[in-house]
Amino acid sequence: MRRVALKVAYVGSDFYGFQRQPNLRTVEGEIIDALKKVGLIEQVENCSYRIAGRTDRGVHALGNVFSFLTEEEVILNQINDALPKDIKILGQAKVPYGFKPRFAENRHYRYLIVDQYIENPDFNLERMILASEIFKGTHNFKNFSKRSERNPLRTVKQVSIQKNRDVITVDVEGESFLWNMVRKMVAVLLNIGNGDLDLKEIQEYFDPEKQVSIKPMPPEGLILMDITYSGLQFKYDLYAKKKFISCLMEKCIYQKTIAAIEEDMIRILMD
Amino acid sequence: MRRVALKVAYVGSDFYGFQRQPNLRTVEGEIIDALKKVGLIEQVENCSYRIAGRTDRGVHALGNVFSFLTEEEVILNQINDALPKDIKILGQAKVPYGFKPRFAENRHYRYLIVDQYIENPDFNLERMILASEIFKGTHNFKNFSKRSERNPLRTVKQVSIQKNRDVITVDVEGESFLWNMVRKMVAVLLNIGNGDLDLKEIQEYFDPEKQVSIKPMPPEGLILMDITYSGLQFKYDLYAKKKFISCLMEKCIYQKTIAAIEEDMIRILMD
Repeated sequence: MRRVALKVAYVGSDFYGFQRQPNLRTVEGEIIDALKKVGLIEQVENCSYRIAGRTDRGVHALGNVFSFLTEEEVILNQINDALPKDIKILGQAKVPYGFKPRFAENRHYRYLIVDQYIENPDFNLERMILASEIFKGTHNFKNFSKRSERNPLRTVKQVSIQKNRDVITVDVEGESFLWNMVRKMVAVLLNIGNGDLDLKEIQEYFDPEKQVSIKPMPPEGLILMDITYSGLQFKYDLYAKKKFISCLMEKCIYQKTIAAIEEDMIRILMD
Repeated sequence: MRRVALKVAYVGSDFYGFQRQPNLRTVEGEIIDALKKVGLIEQVENCSYRIAGRTDRGVHALGNVFSFLTEEEVILNQINDALPKDIKILGQAKVPYGFKPRFAENRHYRYLIVDQYIENPDFNLERMILASEIFKGTHNFKNFSKRSERNPLRTVKQVSIQKNRDVITVDVEGESFLWNMVRKMVAVLLNIGNGDLDLKEIQEYFDPEKQVSIKPMPPEGLILMDITYSGLQFKYDLYAKKKFISCLMEKCIYQKTIAAIEEDMIRILMD
């Protein structure tokens, strides 16, 4: 038996989250069904299946990683043919028998904020960027997750913010994150930009003695961009990428059309 | 018993079309359930229920019209509370006992084309506008519907085309339209704009002896904007409008976020 690690991309919208649940369409459920279908595994319980990131319902991924043991040859396009079009395996890597995808060197999340979230005409991107600097480094993130978290210390390696036409992109990197941490960080950054929160207050949020309740940003804006491992290179498949791009294009034109319809209706009704 | 006409708006995306079907979520099914729930009708079979436009699955409306007989007072907000948030009754009118909503004076449809449909870098809006002029007037629209249509003559009163930032708006008005006719007209107009079809060819499409197969534009871009009747004024309800706007805003921010995510993923994968 050899261990294989696969890099998987998906659009989270039409799944009941990642983790498999009986009778519900989940990313993991579809992956396991596909691995069984092409004969790579027989039972998920016997193949030492491991996953790097159990993303929440609605969250998307370009580079989540899972691994399992198999005796068969892994042919990406065979797995991809067995997968629905909104999940595709983009790459694979041979890994040591004991490889644990959870223990990553770096995780990169991206959150996209569309301009409807900008409530203040004096919205201040510069303040948001200043605030992002405060998040860098090691802090107690108790207030950015469940208060019951055993070890709430986390190191944020990178936070960067960019704005183009009508979307603000927030990139966050670190070795690991608490549940909801990125979405709560982005909520705080947005509050700063909108002027609802003062830069000084962020430091207080890192004080575990103070109890602050932060409403996380909704899941649909979050992408798990990539998970990387020291010394590990994934081999990407061009055809798989192409297949996933065509699914994304089809979905995108549909979503854009409906968003345009809704905007138009709003405009008319507000007249 | 009095006859009432109600003006109804809905976002078509989450329905299996308009017409009621057992065990499926349809616009009509939800409306009839709500009318029963608030006690306006007992059975749909006994209230002389009539509808102006049976929109296709995925098509939206701001001003579809239905009517029925009732002895009770019609309170819009009561019906709206019984309706899901993606359907709202926006106005009502007292109508003669024999009123048939099908026989309208004017129907206004709008189709929104997002710029992903523009395939040609030399896309020509002017040609599209010239083409729209050709559609005006009375023509044989056999090629723009099912070929089995009994009376394929229709009069198009108005076609107008506008483009703003990234959406082309096509407004079409007439007394009545054949099935799929507007979506097929827009498909032809788009082909003209993209340079895939010549202006001269449109006239041939009106020749019932020539058999042309036109792939209609997808339903999600179409709104039934309004249906009007000679001498009939609907009384609109501001609160109902407000409720529908808030549903539209919530949906719009969600769709825009996912579209932005998909665009971002496409960009990254194409690199």
